[in-house]
Amino acid sequence: MRILVIGAGGTIGRAVVAELTGAGHEVVRASRSAPPETRVDIADPDSVAALLDRVGELDAVVCCAASGALVRLDEGEDAEYLTGLDGKLLGQVRLVRRALPRLRDGGSITLTSGAFAEPTPGGSFAALVNAGLEAFVAATAVEPLRGARINAVSPGWVSETLEALGMDPSAGTPAREVARAYLTAVTGGDRGRVLRVGPDGTR
Amino acid sequence: MRILVIGAGGTIGRAVVAELTGAGHEVVRASRSAPPETRVDIADPDSVAALLDRVGELDAVVCCAASGALVRLDEGEDAEYLTGLDGKLLGQVRLVRRALPRLRDGGSITLTSGAFAEPTPGGSFAALVNAGLEAFVAATAVEPLRGARINAVSPGWVSETLEALGMDPSAGTPAREVARAYLTAVTGGDRGRVLRVGPDGTR
Ligand SMILES: NC(=O)c1ccc[n+]([C@@H]2O[C@H](COP(=O)([O-])OP(=O)(O)OC[C@H]3O[C@@H](n4cnc5c(N)ncnc54)[C@H](OP(=O)(O)O)[C@@H]3O)[C@@H](O)[C@H]2O)c1
Ligand SMILES: NC(=O)c1ccc[n+]([C@@H]2O[C@H](COP(=O)([O-])OP(=O)(O)OC[C@H]3O[C@@H](n4cnc5c(N)ncnc54)[C@H](OP(=O)(O)O)[C@@H]3O)[C@@H](O)[C@H]2O)c1
Repeated sequence: MRILVIGAGGTIGRAVVAELTGAGHEVVRASRSAPPETRVDIADPDSVAALLDRVGELDAVVCCAASGALVRLDEGEDAEYLTGLDGKLLGQVRLVRRALPRLRDGGSITLTSGAFAEPTPGGSFAALVNAGLEAFVAATAVEPLRGARINAVSPGWVSETLEALGMDPSAGTPAREVARAYLTAVTGGDRGRVLRVGPDGTR
Repeated sequence: MRILVIGAGGTIGRAVVAELTGAGHEVVRASRSAPPETRVDIADPDSVAALLDRVGELDAVVCCAASGALVRLDEGEDAEYLTGLDGKLLGQVRLVRRALPRLRDGGSITLTSGAFAEPTPGGSFAALVNAGLEAFVAATAVEPLRGARINAVSPGWVSETLEALGMDPSAGTPAREVARAYLTAVTGGDRGRVLRVGPDGTR
């Protein structure tokens, strides 16, 4: 399969690229700092459309871009509080709408949400983004989409991320294991499924 | 209590106003077509801030504004597909941020999400909006908000709405019953709770 991975240079993205390549697939790597040919900012719908035009036919799109920030509900400006609105929530929804008509028949799109092990002060907008994405993905199962499948991977903390933050990596899941969920979403038959990867109880 | 109801002229709003008034509370009614003093468009943050300045001290804010539309994932322009983004999702989140600092101590804010009895083609963005709002509300329970409580009512089909659409009203819940959930949210002790009102199995 020919698969576009957006966010290919990230902690999860690198592991996803390795997993897909290891399984024999051709991977096109994109992100904001990629070379011009595969540069994209998912917060900008025109940039997404232009990328899709440039890369040509695809069997699958995987998006593991973006990253988060904790902002308390009663702090910051709206723009700061609404972190991830364009870069994660609407960006991924618009990506789906633009990628759908360009996928080969029976293709798939895999998005990324995320989960907190427990409710976290400053996490209210991230909770909105993740739950919104997951409900969106689940709801796509009843849309007639020429057979296209849309799924999401919902990771808890990734070990490598915890390590980079100076925290205990054993409380997370290794990126390689998270990446296997993306491979399942791309190569399996799931439709409208949220694949949760994390220590028991994470959601 | 002095309570601001936004969307006071709607099917649910009218019943909420009747329920709160009946319980002896003072209600300030707002919507886009209200008289200038209480006119507001929740899609416009400045209009919300101006309304809050005009109405003065409040014990509670209830928002049952907005309404939906079904748009298939692979149809329409983005602006059409993203129905409810500003008027329901971000509008209610921004309303919370603006109302919080102006509430009397221990005040409350009650939002409205919604639920489909079953997944509905054309309902993917509405599903995102409703699930996002509900996760947001739940996540506010761990924010230190000077004691303010934030909850949501999640109605299924309202009987009066079904009737107006020429459908069987007995498949829905009477607006009066939905309104009681708002009274519970305003006068009870709940924090970060989603009150579901609808036939069994609705979510
Ligand atoms: N790591 C975790 O513990 C964890 C846990 C739960 C959920 N998640 C979610 O998983 C996703 C990936 O996380 P990560 O830890 O791998 O992040 P990361 O290491 O920060 O990598 C993010 C990747 O996405 C790209 N990117 C960021 N914004 C973009 C945009 N607007 N358009 C295109 N590309 C963009 C970045 O490259 P450029 O800067 O070059 O664009 C980078 O390649 C995020 O949505 C995150 O919320 C992560
Ligand atoms: N009725 C149902 O069966 C049902 C089921 C599930 C969920 N819900 C949800 O419950 C909420 C209320 O539904 P409803 O049936 O009562 O709707 P409705 O009868 O259409 O009434 C909506 C009310 O909100 C006001 N409004 C609309 N947009 C607004 C905006 N941007 N700013 C301020 N006010 C606005 C309207 O007045 P103006 O036009 O004057 O502004 C009206 O007073 C909606 O969020 C809807 O999705 C309803």
